Amino acid sequence: MQTFPTKAYGATGSVFNKLAPMDIERAAPKADEVHIDILYCGVCHSDLHQVKNDWHNTIYPCVPGHEIIGRVVEAGSSVTKFRVGDLVGVGCMIDSCGVCPACQEKEENYCEGPVSWTATYNGYMKPQNKDFNTFGGYSTNIVVKEDFVLRIPEGLDPQAAAPILCAGITTYSPLKYWKVGPGQSVAVVGIGGLGHMAVQLARALGASVTAVTRDKEKQADAEKLGAHEVLISSDAAAMKAHELKFDFILITIPDAFEVNDYVKLAKRNGVITTVGLLGPYKAPLDNQEVAMHRRSVAGSIIGGIAETQEVLEFCAEHNILPEVEMIKMQDINDAFDKMQDEEVRFRYVIDMQSLKGSE
Amino acid sequence: MQTFPTKAYGATGSVFNKLAPMDIERAAPKADEVHIDILYCGVCHSDLHQVKNDWHNTIYPCVPGHEIIGRVVEAGSSVTKFRVGDLVGVGCMIDSCGVCPACQEKEENYCEGPVSWTATYNGYMKPQNKDFNTFGGYSTNIVVKEDFVLRIPEGLDPQAAAPILCAGITTYSPLKYWKVGPGQSVAVVGIGGLGHMAVQLARALGASVTAVTRDKEKQADAEKLGAHEVLISSDAAAMKAHELKFDFILITIPDAFEVNDYVKLAKRNGVITTVGLLGPYKAPLDNQEVAMHRRSVAGSIIGGIAETQEVLEFCAEHNILPEVEMIKMQDINDAFDKMQDEEVRFRYVIDMQSLKGSE
Repeated sequence: MQTFPTKAYGATGSVFNKLAPMDIERAAPKADEVHIDILYCGVCHSDLHQVKNDWHNTIYPCVPGHEIIGRVVEAGSSVTKFRVGDLVGVGCMIDSCGVCPACQEKEENYCEGPVSWTATYNGYMKPQNKDFNTFGGYSTNIVVKEDFVLRIPEGLDPQAAAPILCAGITTYSPLKYWKVGPGQSVAVVGIGGLGHMAVQLARALGASVTAVTRDKEKQADAEKLGAHEVLISSDAAAMKAHELKFDFILITIPDAFEVNDYVKLAKRNGVITTVGLLGPYKAPLDNQEVAMHRRSVAGSIIGGIAETQEVLEFCAEHNILPEVEMIKMQDINDAFDKMQDEEVRFRYVIDMQSLKGSE
Repeated sequence: MQTFPTKAYGATGSVFNKLAPMDIERAAPKADEVHIDILYCGVCHSDLHQVKNDWHNTIYPCVPGHEIIGRVVEAGSSVTKFRVGDLVGVGCMIDSCGVCPACQEKEENYCEGPVSWTATYNGYMKPQNKDFNTFGGYSTNIVVKEDFVLRIPEGLDPQAAAPILCAGITTYSPLKYWKVGPGQSVAVVGIGGLGHMAVQLARALGASVTAVTRDKEKQADAEKLGAHEVLISSDAAAMKAHELKFDFILITIPDAFEVNDYVKLAKRNGVITTVGLLGPYKAPLDNQEVAMHRRSVAGSIIGGIAETQEVLEFCAEHNILPEVEMIKMQDINDAFDKMQDEEVRFRYVIDMQSLKGSE
C-alpha cells in the first residue's frame, strides 16, 4: 500500500496521556477517497475522554480530532462529489457498513454492522479488531471516502465551522428527531461546546429556549447566544419552580451526573435526551418520576452524513456559528487542562498552520 | 356528614402488615356520586406494596383494592350516567383536579393538580394532607363520583373483568400511546398480572409478541395467551440473540431490576417502557447503550378514565379476559404470600360474597 508521511499530535498512552508530536503514515487515496489538507480542527471533549481512555477502548498511539476543516488536494479516480480546491469537512465518522437498515436510511451514526461505524480516530467504536486504528484531525492531512466528506457552504467562516461537524450535528440531530419547533419550551443543560450550539440551533428552530448551567458566570453568554431564560441548576428553588416546564430537555454534560434532577423539569410526555455522556448515569433512574408524567429518558449520538450536511447549511442560512478560540497545535495540552477544569468558553479550534509551520 | 358502616379488610400497620377484618365508615353518596355494592375485587401487586409501605407513603389503616366490580345500589340526584342495577367498575382513581392540562385532555392519570389524582385507596399519590385517606375495594361497598366509574360492557364476565381496571389499562395505555400495531415486534417482560394482559392486548393490536420471563415454566402459558415466541431472560445466549430486535418493550416487573439488560433488546429508535416499578431501577442506566441506537427509556402509569372505558370495550370485542383465580376475602394473607413468592399464575380476584356472608 502506498503511504505518505504526515505530521500529527498524539498520545502514546504513557507520560500522563500528554499529547506529543509524532509522525504517522497515511495511505494514499483509493479511487473513492479524497486527500484533504487540514486547515483547522476543533477540540472536542471526546478527544480528552479518548486520550484518557475514559471509555476503556483507546488504542495507543491515539491521534484525536473529529472536527476537521480542510481543502481537497487530491481526488481518487471515481470521486464525483469533490474537486481539488474544494473546502470540505470531516466529522466523527469516516465509514460504516452501508448495508444495515440504519445505513440504508442515511443514519450511518446508528450503523448496526458488525463493528458499527468507523470513527475518525480510534478506529471502531466497538473494537473487534485490535490491530485496526484510525488517526484523526490533529494532523496535517487526512484521506477519507468521499461519502463521508462534507461540503462547507459558502458564507460559513471556515475557522469557526469546525465544531459544527461534531457539537453542531450532535445537538441538531436530536432537536430535529424530537421535532423541536415553535410553541415548544426547550431546556439545554450544560452550556459548553455542545450546549452553546444547542441554544443557537433550538432558538433558530423557533423554540423557547432555557439555558441550564451551574455556572452563574455563563448567564450573560447564554443570553447572548439567544437563550430566552437562564436557569442556574444549583439554585434549588429555581429548579423546583421549573418542574413540569419543558417539552424537551437536551443534556450536554460530558460526565456522569444525577439525571433525576432534570427528569423533574420535563412536562407530561416530555423527553429528556442525553448526548454528552457515553456511559452510566451517576445514580439509578427513578421510574416513579418518569412514569408519573409519562416522560422518556433518551439518548442520541451525533447524526448521519446527510443530516450533517443539513446542519452546515442550516447554520450558514441562520448565521449560526460556534464561538471559537484559535490555538496552536503546540498548546493542546494546556487546552485539555482548561477543558478538564471547565475553564473553556465554548470551543477551541487548532490552526493547523502551526503544525505545518514546524516543518 | 351522613355515613354508613362498611365491612372491610385492612392493615393497621402492625403485626407484620397482615390484613384483618375491620369496620369502616363510608360517606353517603353526594349528588354526583354513586353507591356501589362490590361483587369482586382484583388483587394487584400494588396492594401488597402499599400494605408493606414499600413506597413510604402508606397511611394506616390501609384498605387496598383498586380493581372493583359491583352494582349501583344508589345514585346521587345529579347522576346521569348510571342507574341503580348497572354493572360498573372502579379502577385506581376516584378523583382528580379536573382543571390541569392533563385532566382537560382526559389523562386524569397524569393530573398535575397540587396533589395529583386521588387514589382509590391510600388517598393521594403525593400525600400533602396526612389526615386524608381513602379506603379501597377490599370491602363490601364503595361510594365514587360518577365521572370515575366505568361501565362494564355486556359480554364481559364480571368475575374476570376486575383486573382490566388496573392490569388491563396499565398495559393498554402505553401500547396505544406508543402506537403498537401490525408490523411491529413487541416484547412483554414479566408474565404475571400485568404481563399476561399485555401479551393478549399487544397480540390483539396486531403486533408480533415475544413474552420475556425468567420462569421457564410459564412458556406454555405465555403461548396460550397468544405470544408468538417466548424468551427466557436467564438464557444469556438467547438474550444476546434478541439484541436490537424489538420496536417496543413493555416491562411489568414490579420491583427494582437491571434495566440495561432489556435496553439492549430494543431496535434503533426503540422504546422501553416500565409500568410495574414505581421507584428507582437497580443500577444506573447506561447512556452508551441508550444513545448508540437512539433508544428511549420511558414510564407510564395506568390510564385515563375514557381510555379505561376503551380497554374494557376492546377486551369485550376481542374476547380478551384476565386469567383469574377466585379467592375468599379471608384468604387474602395467603394470597399475598403467594404473590410475594411469585407463585401466582396471573391474577387473584376476591369474591366479596365471602365478606358479606360473614355478616
